[in-house]
Amino acid sequence: MNRIITISREFGSGGREVGKRLADALHCAYYDSEIEASIAQNMDLDESYIARSVENGILANIPLHFGRTIASTRLYKQQVDILVEKRKVLCQIAAASDCVIVGRAADVILAEQNPLKLFVYASMEHKLARCQRYEETSAASPKALEKEIRQVDARRARYHGMFSPIKWGDRANYHLCINTTGLEIKQLIPHLAGYAQAWFAMNGR
Amino acid sequence: MNRIITISREFGSGGREVGKRLADALHCAYYDSEIEASIAQNMDLDESYIARSVENGILANIPLHFGRTIASTRLYKQQVDILVEKRKVLCQIAAASDCVIVGRAADVILAEQNPLKLFVYASMEHKLARCQRYEETSAASPKALEKEIRQVDARRARYHGMFSPIKWGDRANYHLCINTTGLEIKQLIPHLAGYAQAWFAMNGR
Repeated sequence: MNRIITISREFGSGGREVGKRLADALHCAYYDSEIEASIAQNMDLDESYIARSVENGILANIPLHFGRTIASTRLYKQQVDILVEKRKVLCQIAAASDCVIVGRAADVILAEQNPLKLFVYASMEHKLARCQRYEETSAASPKALEKEIRQVDARRARYHGMFSPIKWGDRANYHLCINTTGLEIKQLIPHLAGYAQAWFAMNGR
Repeated sequence: MNRIITISREFGSGGREVGKRLADALHCAYYDSEIEASIAQNMDLDESYIARSVENGILANIPLHFGRTIASTRLYKQQVDILVEKRKVLCQIAAASDCVIVGRAADVILAEQNPLKLFVYASMEHKLARCQRYEETSAASPKALEKEIRQVDARRARYHGMFSPIKWGDRANYHLCINTTGLEIKQLIPHLAGYAQAWFAMNGR
């Protein structure tokens, strides 16, 4: 069985950076938006459209005024197809090689592969400071940014809830919960990589 | 400022072993029941009596039928004195040298020293198996043991609540939450020690 690491993360906590650097340190594949690109290609749909479905849940692409029309039924079906395709892509990825997967409820979808499940989080102050360093979020006011952070996390929790009754962010669901507040992620990686290797060795891989 | 590591832990998760081994690896002092021994000596009281106060909260040594008598007032005062003494002992320990402190709400009592705060936890199944390996808990039935595990943790949470509104076990209060389910703690220590050193270096120590 391959060594799979899943990373769940609060928005702005640096979970993606943890994943990317950990994959580099362990010389294994890294998957984030590549998952939507693959689904988009397989289904001949737009990648950003898939991303909205994958991260925001089944209703994200369906306008509120749609009602019970034939068009809405088709759209619902398409959303379910996207979820089915996503599960398929995640399973293909996990079967192909050792890898790190960020988000996408991979922790519960790939439960049978017994992945090492990490949760990355930080204080709101730290998350705000981190978001302000990135172009796409730096223009927002701290108040608007804080609202966005809470909204993104609420969407992630809701999405996770579609696949499992296990609560997103509940430490019981993870093997290691990492608070990045005030830390430089780069400095943590050798120790996290070592921890991951020890964990896999103790789990027969 | 000294390097202080506080370990909060679910009963049966191996938090004490994590603390002891981490202190050995980092060549620093380790405090667990030594804290009650010191308070007992300072106050000329029995160590097990102190332990009941320290872990179970202020009312543990006061019989329910006591009411508002002079004796009960004296006993309340003594319980408060024990808590004051405990805070004093923890501060002395933290000022004396680098150390690892297990339990005793040291994470919030020593907040000003900015300790590295770890939380150690595990699945109920793992905690039961671990408890069954130890002489003092091995005789209990799994059902009785599970009840005891829940009761001890509830007491710890209540005790913690006397010092801080921060919820015991809430990951937001810790820097790293370690799930020991299925793991041999010894194998994790080099990586946790490295993580701790990196954490202290990034926090100016």
